[in-house]
Amino acid sequence: MIIDAHSHVHDPVDRHLADLDTAGVDRTVLFGTRPHPERAVDLASLRREMKVLDHALAGSGNSIDGYRTAWRELDEALTAHPDRFIGFGSVPLDLPEQDVAAVIEREVVGRGLRGIGELTPPPGQAARIEPVLRAAHDHGALPVVVHGFAPTTAEDLRTLSRLAARYPAVPLVVSQLGGSNWMEAVELVRDTPSMYLELSTANIIFSVRLAIQEIPERTLFGSDAPYGDPVLARTTIERVTPPGEVRDRVLGGNLGRLLGIL
Amino acid sequence: MIIDAHSHVHDPVDRHLADLDTAGVDRTVLFGTRPHPERAVDLASLRREMKVLDHALAGSGNSIDGYRTAWRELDEALTAHPDRFIGFGSVPLDLPEQDVAAVIEREVVGRGLRGIGELTPPPGQAARIEPVLRAAHDHGALPVVVHGFAPTTAEDLRTLSRLAARYPAVPLVVSQLGGSNWMEAVELVRDTPSMYLELSTANIIFSVRLAIQEIPERTLFGSDAPYGDPVLARTTIERVTPPGEVRDRVLGGNLGRLLGIL
Repeated sequence: MIIDAHSHVHDPVDRHLADLDTAGVDRTVLFGTRPHPERAVDLASLRREMKVLDHALAGSGNSIDGYRTAWRELDEALTAHPDRFIGFGSVPLDLPEQDVAAVIEREVVGRGLRGIGELTPPPGQAARIEPVLRAAHDHGALPVVVHGFAPTTAEDLRTLSRLAARYPAVPLVVSQLGGSNWMEAVELVRDTPSMYLELSTANIIFSVRLAIQEIPERTLFGSDAPYGDPVLARTTIERVTPPGEVRDRVLGGNLGRLLGIL
Repeated sequence: MIIDAHSHVHDPVDRHLADLDTAGVDRTVLFGTRPHPERAVDLASLRREMKVLDHALAGSGNSIDGYRTAWRELDEALTAHPDRFIGFGSVPLDLPEQDVAAVIEREVVGRGLRGIGELTPPPGQAARIEPVLRAAHDHGALPVVVHGFAPTTAEDLRTLSRLAARYPAVPLVVSQLGGSNWMEAVELVRDTPSMYLELSTANIIFSVRLAIQEIPERTLFGSDAPYGDPVLARTTIERVTPPGEVRDRVLGGNLGRLLGIL
């Protein structure tokens, strides 16, 4: 089974499904999203959507209200295509700890979602995810996905590895190969048994090759669509792995086992 | 004709040719290189090669001696495969102006190379390429290729566009879509008729789509191999352009006309 470990709700959803079909992806982890860059038709409209993204990645605009539209869109996509999408739910990281736990209980567990993410703590403040890890642990070790590309810092990646070691039952997925800090990300994830590395957004082909070589059982094919493209993301994995067990693991086996759907 | 606008000498060269064959690339612009990341077999050896790259991108280690090995490797590749490679020659940017002109005359024009690059001025110092543009102008408007990804800054891109306007006969190619400053790069190149934008290393698929939409006659398919992969780079262009004139232009027509080989 080919499983994309990272994608966001598209507008319209059918465009996403068409790309997944072309890429031969069976199922994909789906995160809600506030920006919708795929709506942009030119540079001006894209700039508007990217501003929403920049705010989200800076950790601002994190009110519950800001999340409601994203949750609704996610719900609609999951209801329409339960066979294709694996829903994950996000949570604002600036809430008091007991509220984080309540939101996860209501919006993630209560909606039958399979994990938590994509979390975007402000740069330098990855420690803010600790209440989420605690709640994830209390709810049967839900997997938690954290944004790894800029503005995430190398120190954030180290913080995540320390937190992962503190909650070893909770799978902690670092997205986008850790961005420009990918060499350190590979080492941290390799040395922390509960961490996983999602391989989207790499701008150097041998970063993907070496990540898989170092961590064949905990690297995950992901596209980060609509930012990335499922066809290119899958082709990337296939360019650096020969057909066989490791390729199958990365393209879906590792995540399928993690989610208990294989 | 499919022409890759950006690649570096591989060790061994045959590995590069195999990738070009798989990607269906007829000819490729070839730059000399000091780092050889493709030699790395693990993280430790890659770290060593990437340190050489970091030094080069910081503008240090720019002695003529440091360039000699790269020039020799380039010569050997061009001599062995004149039908596949289109040689470009680089030049240290910390030489006195008259020496820059002499090096270009001897090492670029004297060796029959087709252009100058990939230049890597230190971040914030893109103005250092002006003597190169002047020499390029004096030698029949040789095309000049400048690194565009980090550590290149947005201000560097603006400097390049001002210099390009001052030497309008000299084609000035910005590499890697300008990196994270790609939106500004697209606007600057669009508004400066002698500038071109090479599309490798994009981590967002719609950056390539919008760049081609804005500048169909001056965007260039490139892989930045061995950092990028020719198959993925070509597939990226094909994912965002339907078959037809624009795709053909980007995959080779624009560069072929620029180099006078079509």
